[in-house]
Amino acid sequence: MIIVKIGGNIIDNQQALALFLKDFASIKAPKILIHGGGKIATQISKDMGLTPQMVEGRRITDAETLKVVTMVYAGLINKNIVAQLQNNGCNAVGLCGADGGIMLAKKREHPSIDFGYIGHIQNINTYLLNILLNNNYTPIIVPITYDGKGGLLNTNADDIASNIAIELSKEQDITFIYCFEKKGLLLDIEDDNSYISTVRIHEIQKLKDDGIITEGMIPKADNIKSTIENGVKKVILCHASDILNINSENSKIGTTFTL
Amino acid sequence: MIIVKIGGNIIDNQQALALFLKDFASIKAPKILIHGGGKIATQISKDMGLTPQMVEGRRITDAETLKVVTMVYAGLINKNIVAQLQNNGCNAVGLCGADGGIMLAKKREHPSIDFGYIGHIQNINTYLLNILLNNNYTPIIVPITYDGKGGLLNTNADDIASNIAIELSKEQDITFIYCFEKKGLLLDIEDDNSYISTVRIHEIQKLKDDGIITEGMIPKADNIKSTIENGVKKVILCHASDILNINSENSKIGTTFTL
Repeated sequence: MIIVKIGGNIIDNQQALALFLKDFASIKAPKILIHGGGKIATQISKDMGLTPQMVEGRRITDAETLKVVTMVYAGLINKNIVAQLQNNGCNAVGLCGADGGIMLAKKREHPSIDFGYIGHIQNINTYLLNILLNNNYTPIIVPITYDGKGGLLNTNADDIASNIAIELSKEQDITFIYCFEKKGLLLDIEDDNSYISTVRIHEIQKLKDDGIITEGMIPKADNIKSTIENGVKKVILCHASDILNINSENSKIGTTFTL
Repeated sequence: MIIVKIGGNIIDNQQALALFLKDFASIKAPKILIHGGGKIATQISKDMGLTPQMVEGRRITDAETLKVVTMVYAGLINKNIVAQLQNNGCNAVGLCGADGGIMLAKKREHPSIDFGYIGHIQNINTYLLNILLNNNYTPIIVPITYDGKGGLLNTNADDIASNIAIELSKEQDITFIYCFEKKGLLLDIEDDNSYISTVRIHEIQKLKDDGIITEGMIPKADNIKSTIENGVKKVILCHASDILNINSENSKIGTTFTL
């Protein structure tokens, strides 16, 4: 089974998104897509006259922002992705964490800052996901979780993707495809074709020490390491435009991380 | 099986909605909820600086309005209803017409006016609904349909509820509960307790002739008549606050329409 996570660099570009969805639809294995939100939520917040609340450089999800995020992620983006996938022959079903109780989260606690309606994942319930997958449906998941008390929480899409992959890996082999703006883990940040083909997770520390894994790559690498340590067999870090080649056994895409 | 349709008078009132969802969750039979949008979409359109486009007194769903409707119905309202139902022990799953391809529609054609992205239902696919119902999930459906070409269409919620009830009635007995702002079909419009207990659909014409079914009640009665003529055994027209009594065999709620 294949789990794909895409972020803002694809969501924000209608043309790139349409191409990606065509490729994603053609993946023959059972599959799940997890998508973040991109800049559309920020734009719609502005259109609605909301001012981003920042504390110590971090964004606060207040009640109004949670409304916007719920509308944009679970409504606008998710349903348009589902409609486009249907048009490409992929029987997609859009879900947030409240649907079928698939993702339960707890409001994130911080000793001094109230980040608002931000969720920290507590539990992934795979029951509905398995029913859908067994009936040839493709779950399309947004990073909005359920708080167990009738409310919703904005949640990090990378964490959601990783947690879903870990939970489903207890039942079957999972390949987790983590799409980002580069073709893989680059040896030379200036050369997009310099990506490393394979990384075993015990090598990650050395790659950090050598300055290959730096800055924004550090949390991604840590997330990948923990995903694999918790049972996921393979994580492929690549550009969304490369996923079509996942169908081909011989073709190598992106950087493959394994135990 | 029970299918309930609620409209703006409940959606727009957070307190009434919370009470209704508690009652709905307690219905023991397999059930589906179809909800419209209410005034929230209009308010958010205004917040976003959109001006309602009207032609000959009728609202046009232009591309921007379709975005707002998709966000508000399928995102904000639907996911909050699902979260509240989960909190009441009802394992809800929110769906629009694109999800699992459940509702296919065609852009409504009019000889002189382009109403924009308005759908006329072509086909209801009950496959996903039956899978969910058979696994004790409760589908919560928004009036956004799929156009079969990768796009979405804004669609009348009464039509959707009626079409789903008709399609599912081919497989089992359906009670369709049509909630509105009154307790039933009133003999005296000034007296909310003057509702008629039972109406057989051949009596509808006489009730129109006698001025009992007038104005806004006419399309509702026509919709109910056609729903029953097409196979639905029973339609109950009532106020959302009365649905709890559906569990009690002896208690009569609203106006029951039958063949």
